[in-house]
Amino acid sequence: MEFSSKLLEKAVHEMSQLPGIGKRTALRLVLHLLKQPKEQTSFLSQALIGMREEIKFCQSCHNISDTEICEICANPKRDHALVCVVEDIRDVMAIENTGQFRGIYHVLGGKISPIDGVGPSQLNIPTLIKKIHEGGIRELIFALSSTMEGDTTNFYIYRQIKEVSIITSTIARGISVGDELEYADEVTLGRSILHRVPFENSFKNN
Amino acid sequence: MEFSSKLLEKAVHEMSQLPGIGKRTALRLVLHLLKQPKEQTSFLSQALIGMREEIKFCQSCHNISDTEICEICANPKRDHALVCVVEDIRDVMAIENTGQFRGIYHVLGGKISPIDGVGPSQLNIPTLIKKIHEGGIRELIFALSSTMEGDTTNFYIYRQIKEVSIITSTIARGISVGDELEYADEVTLGRSILHRVPFENSFKNN
Repeated sequence: MEFSSKLLEKAVHEMSQLPGIGKRTALRLVLHLLKQPKEQTSFLSQALIGMREEIKFCQSCHNISDTEICEICANPKRDHALVCVVEDIRDVMAIENTGQFRGIYHVLGGKISPIDGVGPSQLNIPTLIKKIHEGGIRELIFALSSTMEGDTTNFYIYRQIKEVSIITSTIARGISVGDELEYADEVTLGRSILHRVPFENSFKNN
Repeated sequence: MEFSSKLLEKAVHEMSQLPGIGKRTALRLVLHLLKQPKEQTSFLSQALIGMREEIKFCQSCHNISDTEICEICANPKRDHALVCVVEDIRDVMAIENTGQFRGIYHVLGGKISPIDGVGPSQLNIPTLIKKIHEGGIRELIFALSSTMEGDTTNFYIYRQIKEVSIITSTIARGISVGDELEYADEVTLGRSILHRVPFENSFKNN
């Protein structure tokens, strides 16, 4: 792609560094900004710089926060003895949107993946282990994605804390609400039968 | 979507103002920036602001440029009597990439579209008409997209300049090189038969 302007080329180059944004999409986005009032570009740029420079991670759960301790960890109404282990902050947002969870979170920041060179020390696992050994936690819910890496991460944490007497659980896997059985994969359908719940419980929402 | 940080929310909001970028994609992009070194965010922001504040449009052809007159218009080796009329600068880049055109361009900045409230005066049409009436142009090639708006725009310009004795042409429409005939639409196939070229000419690349 040949550009008639170095400024344009640089903007497109930087934009195309974002994941899933190729050169063509980057050009489309940048040309859109050129057609909009200058304020839109400065608002976008300032919001990005402000976010990157000033955002904090909660010292307790590593969730993104504007304060040292995030709103969830600072909320006395939440059950601090119930900790949900998630991969990243998008999972926190997804679970929060359900309105079904009143405990607190621990954001690992990824999964153990030896192929990508990600070990326990690159993740927020040591702080989780320390928190559990310090006591006060009743139950740990693993809510990682059910992949090889997710299972490895769950198992690694489980082994580190097995001498501590706390309940460990994982989120239920099964057929999505509203889904047809015939289109479900065998593993999911198999697990949904294996982990069937008493019929009376299936009415309850909480 | 509930955010645990106002800074994050603002960044996602601004990012999702871009065309084709929804809230979820915006969040993914912003979280990616958070994982990268701070420099990446500042490079991106500075490139965007720099581009938006400092970029110029060529005073002759309205192409994007870092100088008052763009590289193409300033090039004495190009044929200044042959002008290709295009919709926006992406078309200039596409035609330049073919290496088949040695004339200059005129970027309209859009097409006449009464529904969207875009008339000739919102586009770079007056400057084109003026340029043509001033003389020195031998041929005008219309290279707008072949839609209702494109045809309207071509026809509007054509009517304004019909008393000036210049050649007007449009780019050839036909079956793409390498395409199967059976999958072509009727209009395109029809035009490709109507505007057939002498067989000897079909070998030539220039």
